[in-house]
Amino acid sequence: MLVIMQAHATEEQVGAVCRKIEELGFRAHPMPGPTRTAIGITGNTVPVDPAALEGLAGVAECIAVSKPYKLVARELKEDNTVVDLGDGVRVGGTELAIIAGPCAVESREQAFAIAAKVKAAGATLFRGGAYKPRSSPYSFQGLGEEGLKILAEVRAEFGLKIVTEAVDSESLELVEHYADVIQIGARNMQNFSLLKRAGRAAKPVLLKRGLSATLDEFLMAAEYILAEGNYNVILCERGIRTFADHTRNTLDLSVIPAVKRLSHLPIIVDPSHGTGRREKVIPLSRAAVAVGADGLLVEVHHQPEQALSDGYQSLLPDQFQQLMEEISQIGAVLRRSVARAAGTPQSLRAV
Amino acid sequence: MLVIMQAHATEEQVGAVCRKIEELGFRAHPMPGPTRTAIGITGNTVPVDPAALEGLAGVAECIAVSKPYKLVARELKEDNTVVDLGDGVRVGGTELAIIAGPCAVESREQAFAIAAKVKAAGATLFRGGAYKPRSSPYSFQGLGEEGLKILAEVRAEFGLKIVTEAVDSESLELVEHYADVIQIGARNMQNFSLLKRAGRAAKPVLLKRGLSATLDEFLMAAEYILAEGNYNVILCERGIRTFADHTRNTLDLSVIPAVKRLSHLPIIVDPSHGTGRREKVIPLSRAAVAVGADGLLVEVHHQPEQALSDGYQSLLPDQFQQLMEEISQIGAVLRRSVARAAGTPQSLRAV
Amino acid sequence: MLVIMQAHATEEQVGAVCRKIEELGFRAHPMPGPTRTAIGITGNTVPVDPAALEGLAGVAECIAVSKPYKLVARELKEDNTVVDLGDGVRVGGTELAIIAGPCAVESREQAFAIAAKVKAAGATLFRGGAYKPRSSPYSFQGLGEEGLKILAEVRAEFGLKIVTEAVDSESLELVEHYADVIQIGARNMQNFSLLKRAGRAAKPVLLKRGLSATLDEFLMAAEYILAEGNYNVILCERGIRTFADHTRNTLDLSVIPAVKRLSHLPIIVDPSHGTGRREKVIPLSRAAVAVGADGLLVEVHHQPEQALSDGYQSLLPDQFQQLMEEISQIGAVLRRSVARAAGTPQSLRAV
Amino acid sequence: MLVIMQAHATEEQVGAVCRKIEELGFRAHPMPGPTRTAIGITGNTVPVDPAALEGLAGVAECIAVSKPYKLVARELKEDNTVVDLGDGVRVGGTELAIIAGPCAVESREQAFAIAAKVKAAGATLFRGGAYKPRSSPYSFQGLGEEGLKILAEVRAEFGLKIVTEAVDSESLELVEHYADVIQIGARNMQNFSLLKRAGRAAKPVLLKRGLSATLDEFLMAAEYILAEGNYNVILCERGIRTFADHTRNTLDLSVIPAVKRLSHLPIIVDPSHGTGRREKVIPLSRAAVAVGADGLLVEVHHQPEQALSDGYQSLLPDQFQQLMEEISQIGAVLRRSVARAAGTPQSLRAV
Repeated sequence: MLVIMQAHATEEQVGAVCRKIEELGFRAHPMPGPTRTAIGITGNTVPVDPAALEGLAGVAECIAVSKPYKLVARELKEDNTVVDLGDGVRVGGTELAIIAGPCAVESREQAFAIAAKVKAAGATLFRGGAYKPRSSPYSFQGLGEEGLKILAEVRAEFGLKIVTEAVDSESLELVEHYADVIQIGARNMQNFSLLKRAGRAAKPVLLKRGLSATLDEFLMAAEYILAEGNYNVILCERGIRTFADHTRNTLDLSVIPAVKRLSHLPIIVDPSHGTGRREKVIPLSRAAVAVGADGLLVEVHHQPEQALSDGYQSLLPDQFQQLMEEISQIGAVLRRSVARAAGTPQSLRAV
Repeated sequence: MLVIMQAHATEEQVGAVCRKIEELGFRAHPMPGPTRTAIGITGNTVPVDPAALEGLAGVAECIAVSKPYKLVARELKEDNTVVDLGDGVRVGGTELAIIAGPCAVESREQAFAIAAKVKAAGATLFRGGAYKPRSSPYSFQGLGEEGLKILAEVRAEFGLKIVTEAVDSESLELVEHYADVIQIGARNMQNFSLLKRAGRAAKPVLLKRGLSATLDEFLMAAEYILAEGNYNVILCERGIRTFADHTRNTLDLSVIPAVKRLSHLPIIVDPSHGTGRREKVIPLSRAAVAVGADGLLVEVHHQPEQALSDGYQSLLPDQFQQLMEEISQIGAVLRRSVARAAGTPQSLRAV
Repeated sequence: MLVIMQAHATEEQVGAVCRKIEELGFRAHPMPGPTRTAIGITGNTVPVDPAALEGLAGVAECIAVSKPYKLVARELKEDNTVVDLGDGVRVGGTELAIIAGPCAVESREQAFAIAAKVKAAGATLFRGGAYKPRSSPYSFQGLGEEGLKILAEVRAEFGLKIVTEAVDSESLELVEHYADVIQIGARNMQNFSLLKRAGRAAKPVLLKRGLSATLDEFLMAAEYILAEGNYNVILCERGIRTFADHTRNTLDLSVIPAVKRLSHLPIIVDPSHGTGRREKVIPLSRAAVAVGADGLLVEVHHQPEQALSDGYQSLLPDQFQQLMEEISQIGAVLRRSVARAAGTPQSLRAV
Repeated sequence: MLVIMQAHATEEQVGAVCRKIEELGFRAHPMPGPTRTAIGITGNTVPVDPAALEGLAGVAECIAVSKPYKLVARELKEDNTVVDLGDGVRVGGTELAIIAGPCAVESREQAFAIAAKVKAAGATLFRGGAYKPRSSPYSFQGLGEEGLKILAEVRAEFGLKIVTEAVDSESLELVEHYADVIQIGARNMQNFSLLKRAGRAAKPVLLKRGLSATLDEFLMAAEYILAEGNYNVILCERGIRTFADHTRNTLDLSVIPAVKRLSHLPIIVDPSHGTGRREKVIPLSRAAVAVGADGLLVEVHHQPEQALSDGYQSLLPDQFQQLMEEISQIGAVLRRSVARAAGTPQSLRAV
């Protein structure tokens, strides 16, 4: 923390700020300048709350100089975290983790048809919402536990790991039971009760960046989960809200190297929500792999025009196959392979 | 819904889109133009999901032309909703509703000291967080139920109506029991589980706009509450996230006349979170009243430098007194009075 | 400037940064902390360019702690600047300066018809574009010098001071000749050649905030004009670009108290471009006056449906009359009167 | 254009709007719906100005359904525009165009030292500012014509094509004389006088996207240049302004496929300004090539810690060499080669 005094602050005011800092148990370092004095603070183990100082007479502003997160920081843990889901499926290692599937689970038939396609194309994780946070109460809200059961059947049949969203503590308990990875959606990134509950879950958590979350807020949301004891967190960039109107959101790919520098956690990219338009999913997927993401979360639907949600941003199975081929080549340049699960399930032999 | 065809779309493609629209049970109105054809859709009672059409060959884009909300719409209910909290305290009527108090309840002494001051200055509602959503898991998270009990004592002693935040279904149940108005915070504006639970509560709900919520999303979040049967919703503008860095958030006062035009719900303004800086609270409070807001939600603390959160945006009691005087005069221009509760409590006689 | 070292920076690296700072002619103040060292810099009279230090080994980041502007700063000049346009018309004094007129000058008849109306309602300055920066090359671009001549006739006939936009050095020379105040538009706020030319002009400058300008950038743009010797600058908030789509721009009224705190320059508000919608102009005008603005820049048109640009955000004369009455009352609360020019011109006697 | 009537609009109001549309010379297509009527407009060759209709009684809003640009549109010209600079250097073809060099030309020695390095690494175009738009009037503003002469010497010595910025009509005339490509900076993207002048220039124009420009505004700015007769325009994405604070700007890579879909013009990416941080330039360069950009504009400096501007975002020559190797491999996946100029200049033989 650095306290900047006003240009006309008196020596008494500077002294009072220094005394307050010492009272708080820290050390004050006044640095007189030509127009104003700045006071450095050291000796704090947690970030200093500016509220204690900004109200004092003569103080112009307080500037934070250390970051508020600890457990997620690369300074604490130099090696990359690799989330191991078993059966050779890992997120954050040298393989790219490809999570594909429909926006929402609509029926057993739909889920199986899509799972067969994405499995054949090389995905090792399957996505599909059973609980859908929709901006309208009149839109399809998901199949609930029935959807989770279908997802568990998909895993049994295809050997795909299951990623699905929890929206409150009740659904989180069920998702924890049925799925392999618990997704926390962008709109819940600062639902701190849900984050704490996820921090006590026995399964890894996929945490999506909020639409208006700064990098610090994103990492602090992950910190909530780690602080409760769950160290298996996968971050996911899915686009931020800006003035730009040619895509649904603005995919912020620069956050990938920024996260890699500050944190040891893996980070993947969702180009489907990140762009909101089918024709941009493949180019942005290539870019995500090229920038250094650890994987992708992609919406695929075999009949997007009949999808109950987000059909216009879902790839067709053939397009997903093309995506896999293109990112395999891009990945190779960065020495990242496309992950393949051990073994090929019965039902795929004939595909 | 209006479907815009690509410039080179064929007649067959236009025909296929029209057939699809008819299949969905609606009526298609093709309008050929010099460079492209547009197809209007009528006959729908709910908004048409663009997903069903955007994937068809030859379609350039789908444009929504009707709004997705119903119950919150002024078209449905022309008269302003007035939320009546009893004892003459109303939100949305001719009186301005002034909600004041500390960011967080810290102790009985703190709450009573501040309550005496804001009551004396003319506030009729008291705010104070018992459950605090904080971006860091290491920050003070609120006193929980103990804080709610203190708030109930404040009501008994000062006759102030209590507004406090719920962050999940457990806390909502307790807030519903102890408080007069259930606050849903900005970070939970699209926590749809919480909105549904609030929609089944017996108390009015104060819904804050999310940091990156469009007006449509804000009204749809309120729609979730009304759709469950709770029609007593108070909206609250508290600043949006933009690039501007001279305030913590950018207070969007233009949303007040926009809400008044589209909806019958009352809307108040939080100039404390909206600016994040004490010295801007009074000018922006004047502006909020001048633009037509139905009230204010203001942070006041008697010892802001010792506050456990947000001290630097809290007004001192004297400043709040000044604010009340200034907005009384501004309100008079718009024929809005500052609400005063019936009776003056014992403890205020000597103030 | 404060240099933050990386957590694992060596003593040698800290030493090298300190030596570099001394080489640049400044003084280095290293402050070791529990996890990292920060180095304060003093002795600089101009802001230190971070480029000289951010590239050194072990440096995590450089944080600017002093502001880059000088001539516009209130620290330099405590008293408010009042721009005196003669005949009792001042901007920045106790009177509110009301600038009203059409978006574009379209004809002598149109300009005179509107001027008569706004004069009668109490405006003392007349606006109207002769050079129109339009996003499309195919839109009406203004009448050019012919428009300026009409504006000069308006001044002669109605005694209104003329404010009109210059878009390049050629038009600036003409505007300087014909008008009383040279307007620099939002899109040209960082057209530094134009700012320098305006800084050498003999007339006051009205500088509009750019759509994505931070407060620092806005003040630095004004600094360009003052640095060339023209101290008569009037700032104008006209809305910033955000994700919010219910208005054309988001009017940032919090910038008014922020400017008042940091600078001695007057600042007015343009609620017409700030909202882009006629029905929001009056409420936001009230708010602008209530927040402490020194005046308004309002579009008025007697036949907005026939206006060649921006008709839908122009007030009708009757609405402008209502606006003047409402802001007179709001202004009175802040002890600001609505300015009235000395004398009433011939043509108004019969209105 | 589609006119949406209010829910309670009368038949008379609908009729009046239709008559107005016909008066304007267009055709009106009223479409009654269950709650409101929409009116389609056809027969217009240029976009309809909503101002003419939004003011009419009963009109809720006007929605534009056709795009305002013509000459830049792919609908007009299906084939990609390839800007041919001679000597085998092309922008928009199968080769990636790599433009590298310092932010500002500082001296002959500096320019030659960097030119030798970037030439050796494979760049075919050299960048370097002689006129620098700086946010502070007290920052280094460039060497002016002296800088242009140095750039011309660089071309003579190294065979590199020269790209440099013009900031007003005077500098544009000189840039047109000395350079191969005239750059229009982001802050001048809507400096329409400058765009028109560039449209009359004999050299190709590199147009950078403004910090808050929508895609439509970006393309319309290019339309200004084409409308004056200069069809050789290269677009450049360089980051937009958002709330995200981990990079200087937010690089919007999704605009690349969006431009490719709507326009025939080539588009390159500036990862240096787009991120503002050296360590993010290489990953984002890879991503830019992977998403389909036609080239890169990269800042390179051999002594960034002594650079007069933007040193902290400039790559070192070794890093640029690494960038070229990585993008060559990524480019190969998309069948894009890295352009190499014919011949190798004298001075490089010994490098």
